[in-house]
Amino acid sequence: MMVYTLGYIVVNTLKKFLEKKAYNMRLSSLMMTSLAESGHPTSCLSAADIVSVLFFYAMHYDPQSPINPNNDRFILSKGHASPLLYAAWKEVGVLTDDDLRTYRDFDSVLEGHPTMRFSHTEAATGALGIGLSIGVGMALSARLDKLDFRTYVLLGDSEIAEGAIWEAAELAHYYKLNNLIGIVDVNRLGQSTQALHGHHLQRYEKKFEAFGWKTIVIDGHDISQIMDALDKARNSKDLPVMIIAKTYKGYGVKSAENKMGFHGKAFKKEDLNLIFKEFEKKFPTVVGFDEATYSWKPKKPEKPSYEYEENICSSLVLPVRTYEIGQKIPTRKVYGEAVSKLGNLCKSVVSLDAEVKNSTFAEIFEKNHPERFFQCFIAEQNMIGMAVGFDQRGKIPFASTFGAFMTRGHDQIRMAAIGQANLRLVGSHAGVSIGQDGPSQMALEDIAMMRCLPGSVVLYPCDAISTYRLVEQMSRYTNGITYLRTTRKATPVIYDTNQKFQIGGCNVLIQNSYDKACVIAAGITLFEALKAYEVLKNEGITVSIIDLYSVKPLNREKVIEVAKASGNKIVTVEDHYLQGGIGEAITRAVSGECIDVACLGVTSLPRSGRPDELLAWAKIDSAAIVHQVKALLA
Amino acid sequence: MMVYTLGYIVVNTLKKFLEKKAYNMRLSSLMMTSLAESGHPTSCLSAADIVSVLFFYAMHYDPQSPINPNNDRFILSKGHASPLLYAAWKEVGVLTDDDLRTYRDFDSVLEGHPTMRFSHTEAATGALGIGLSIGVGMALSARLDKLDFRTYVLLGDSEIAEGAIWEAAELAHYYKLNNLIGIVDVNRLGQSTQALHGHHLQRYEKKFEAFGWKTIVIDGHDISQIMDALDKARNSKDLPVMIIAKTYKGYGVKSAENKMGFHGKAFKKEDLNLIFKEFEKKFPTVVGFDEATYSWKPKKPEKPSYEYEENICSSLVLPVRTYEIGQKIPTRKVYGEAVSKLGNLCKSVVSLDAEVKNSTFAEIFEKNHPERFFQCFIAEQNMIGMAVGFDQRGKIPFASTFGAFMTRGHDQIRMAAIGQANLRLVGSHAGVSIGQDGPSQMALEDIAMMRCLPGSVVLYPCDAISTYRLVEQMSRYTNGITYLRTTRKATPVIYDTNQKFQIGGCNVLIQNSYDKACVIAAGITLFEALKAYEVLKNEGITVSIIDLYSVKPLNREKVIEVAKASGNKIVTVEDHYLQGGIGEAITRAVSGECIDVACLGVTSLPRSGRPDELLAWAKIDSAAIVHQVKALLA
Repeated sequence: MMVYTLGYIVVNTLKKFLEKKAYNMRLSSLMMTSLAESGHPTSCLSAADIVSVLFFYAMHYDPQSPINPNNDRFILSKGHASPLLYAAWKEVGVLTDDDLRTYRDFDSVLEGHPTMRFSHTEAATGALGIGLSIGVGMALSARLDKLDFRTYVLLGDSEIAEGAIWEAAELAHYYKLNNLIGIVDVNRLGQSTQALHGHHLQRYEKKFEAFGWKTIVIDGHDISQIMDALDKARNSKDLPVMIIAKTYKGYGVKSAENKMGFHGKAFKKEDLNLIFKEFEKKFPTVVGFDEATYSWKPKKPEKPSYEYEENICSSLVLPVRTYEIGQKIPTRKVYGEAVSKLGNLCKSVVSLDAEVKNSTFAEIFEKNHPERFFQCFIAEQNMIGMAVGFDQRGKIPFASTFGAFMTRGHDQIRMAAIGQANLRLVGSHAGVSIGQDGPSQMALEDIAMMRCLPGSVVLYPCDAISTYRLVEQMSRYTNGITYLRTTRKATPVIYDTNQKFQIGGCNVLIQNSYDKACVIAAGITLFEALKAYEVLKNEGITVSIIDLYSVKPLNREKVIEVAKASGNKIVTVEDHYLQGGIGEAITRAVSGECIDVACLGVTSLPRSGRPDELLAWAKIDSAAIVHQVKALLA
Repeated sequence: MMVYTLGYIVVNTLKKFLEKKAYNMRLSSLMMTSLAESGHPTSCLSAADIVSVLFFYAMHYDPQSPINPNNDRFILSKGHASPLLYAAWKEVGVLTDDDLRTYRDFDSVLEGHPTMRFSHTEAATGALGIGLSIGVGMALSARLDKLDFRTYVLLGDSEIAEGAIWEAAELAHYYKLNNLIGIVDVNRLGQSTQALHGHHLQRYEKKFEAFGWKTIVIDGHDISQIMDALDKARNSKDLPVMIIAKTYKGYGVKSAENKMGFHGKAFKKEDLNLIFKEFEKKFPTVVGFDEATYSWKPKKPEKPSYEYEENICSSLVLPVRTYEIGQKIPTRKVYGEAVSKLGNLCKSVVSLDAEVKNSTFAEIFEKNHPERFFQCFIAEQNMIGMAVGFDQRGKIPFASTFGAFMTRGHDQIRMAAIGQANLRLVGSHAGVSIGQDGPSQMALEDIAMMRCLPGSVVLYPCDAISTYRLVEQMSRYTNGITYLRTTRKATPVIYDTNQKFQIGGCNVLIQNSYDKACVIAAGITLFEALKAYEVLKNEGITVSIIDLYSVKPLNREKVIEVAKASGNKIVTVEDHYLQGGIGEAITRAVSGECIDVACLGVTSLPRSGRPDELLAWAKIDSAAIVHQVKALLA
């Protein structure tokens, strides 16, 4: 152990100090949960020793400056042990006992599971199995910035069953992240049953080894073993390290220790005194230890070896990019071009792709910025988690895959929204218009999914110019998740190079004096609307046409204004299921204005076929629009 | 090799026969994709030998009777190799060359990725990493039915990166599924880059071994090795078996073989003749082989060793269950009681839970039917996939977890809808009303997610009686996915024991002669609506109240009728984000009727707090309803 150089007495005092800190955190965790009458005290008791050694021995950080870019990072993947996180920061001096007593109160930032409202939280957790992915993102971010901070992730044993853990494990090995250290708190017991491997630590060991990690198996209640393991982990040459710690759930409370039935159960306030007495007996040497005998100071992080500079790129402006009107180019390709150019402007821009870079055109970014392109392979959950980690470390992540496969990361996206992460997500191959590949590859629920996130933005451009400028807008948005929906097929450029696009905007493409209806479309269906316009015009019916490139937020005022000038009639048309899509959004937006809204969208299970056949089958092609407009006028 | 008992000459003829079948399938796959001008021929060429040995040597099945319960099952997890599946069935005699030529046509059942429209498809695939989970469900179903069929899953190497694979792998080991056999087609190349482990087969071997599988590494183009491996796999004593086969993508086409850049690229029709010539040179002994020299007959499955009887339980009727009016009981608990009683009525009912059985109350089912309860641990993706497998084998699966964590299985749920599976999903802990645990545990997007599935049903009962009867309805529904949303808190019983509930129904709880507005609520908010009713009544304002327990389908006619009798005003109130929820569904349903609709729902990121505080904060409590009704009348 490195610290033996400190001399036996000092080491002994340090160990006592760490034991005492663990003891304090145990008491705090019990107190917080009992006062709140809810929470997971037994899950804290198992991990207190580990967290003590992390915060007061292993980690290098400046408690006064959580924004220090070279602080070691701590992710509590087992988020239900949040009291332990808060108790640790209380021991550090950042929180007070009074703060802790507000645990789970409405006005407190100390929530039931960690959220970003508490300024020292590195990642909002609570859905299990997401912390390691976020850690992978942070560790890669460190490498990109040439910073030597370590990222520590504390995992529960039950969450190891989540596949996302293995996606993250594989990537960490692939990228040889020796700056990523995981600790599994193997307390054996899950919520309602024993975890998969019980106390068979070898099963965890074998698995992580098979996934290419260095593993260290320890007694998670032995301070020396934890110190030793974390020393070794910090000095790993080229592999991520997983420490597998045998612990006991409810450690120290005899009635609950290592027993089923105590998950997520706070002890009664009136029982606390007895439990505290039990603790005094269980940890007699700790109780009498005076913390002041060990003058702990946080190991401040070393300064970056170069002049580290945070890349503030809040108002990126893409250079003018000329596309000829009528030129056919898929919006997904323009996405690739635009994000690559953003990469030229700002070195914080990173791109993540789930092994479909030649379909999403993230490959253009890769070609120009290979060091900032991260291949995540076919593991979308982990890709989203990684993006959250990058965002948290000051990067501007763009993560792309087929829109359909964004559903694979839905929980991670939901948690990213809770963590107020600024993700830029790009889903290609939207809708039935992709054609022959069939329903499994068609994004038909992505608009609903992405609209239903607090603070989210949903963009769906139809042509090259709008795509180019909306990607620029995405890079600037810092209030949550932005989602860009792109189209497989090449579509013609309809906008002028200098056309402006903004989040929350729309564009009235066609408006005449005596329009009978307003057709609202976005993406691929906009071209069907334009075709329908010509057909209707030839029959003496004119309609206004709105390009609703910003589905959320939605320019309600403009839509109402145009609809009112168009006979109070709207037809929406979208290559998406009707539920939660553009039609419902518009219907809701104009509610109360006595505007008739007819919605065209996909209503049943599609199949393989040619794009034009499928647009016709789904009744979202020009013929269907013509028919619907006439029906509305009849 | 077992077949050596057949004698050398016979074996040699059999091998030639199998090589020939592989050869034929290669030609068919090339022909199909070139005619369709799309598809993944190179991914078929790598796996043709494996599929040949599976269909014409290893598998026991009756081609004329796909519904035979004891047929071996074949799941093409790498769904993009669909031509190979269709080519195999052509070689079996189920399809013709003319059928194959319709590949990917709008009118063909031979879709780009396998769907259930082709009657021999065992599982709709196309999203990667889902097949093994479905196989786990089928293998467990076999065990439950005491049938000795095997389930074979053909996986691609790239999809092994998906975490869902490891969730399934772990469960297969946990349940000791010696009747589940996987084969990884390690053709090295993904869509846009080399797969994680290239041709390092040992990496796959180590991983599956660490997850408790028996592994067999083979040359995937050597018929003898494939036969041998499948023989061994079929005789596995107590472990699932993963065969790891080294293959070459594009095998046989020199210009493409083992080369990047040929994923999902059909060869040009005009190049096919040259390729076929190349094949003749590559497989000279095969070309001259006359298939008739080996009189292949499918190995028919053995009859079940007992009188197997399919459990047709299409009209289950739960016994009368009395709850006292006013009695407080959480709907989630009633779910547990109801599904357990369904289990009494029909032995096809199975329950799956993601390690929260004491929260979802699936534990009641477990207690009464332990042999039909499947603990899936914290691995929701795999749980959904398993449920699909159970459904496909004639079971009535109910899968439950927190509603929030249903998002984790969104891609699997989406694919289940494409596969027309009859899943019964149950999400507990809906909305902000769960309280102190905070946003990570609150389902606030589940209604949007579940509405946005073709053929889905979304149910959200408020009390014990409605829950009980709606669970009964779920068991009877066979047109897709049903979702039941349950509440954490105990709620009072408001319905009479004999009240009827139906999918697509709603219940007008209160209606007076001169109602000023109609309040539409479901679940927890219904009680806020009832409280608001009393407050408003005291102020001389009466409103009608609808319990919208069936959110999808939605009883549009009744809602319009009541709203028209209530001043043409509606207030919806839901414990869910506004997007894609009840408010948008109602607004859309009454569109065109000039009814004012105001929607109350969650609009920003919640936090920890008491349930009542959070309902008030979200403005979905009785006070907010009172306020909204008055605002609408002002």
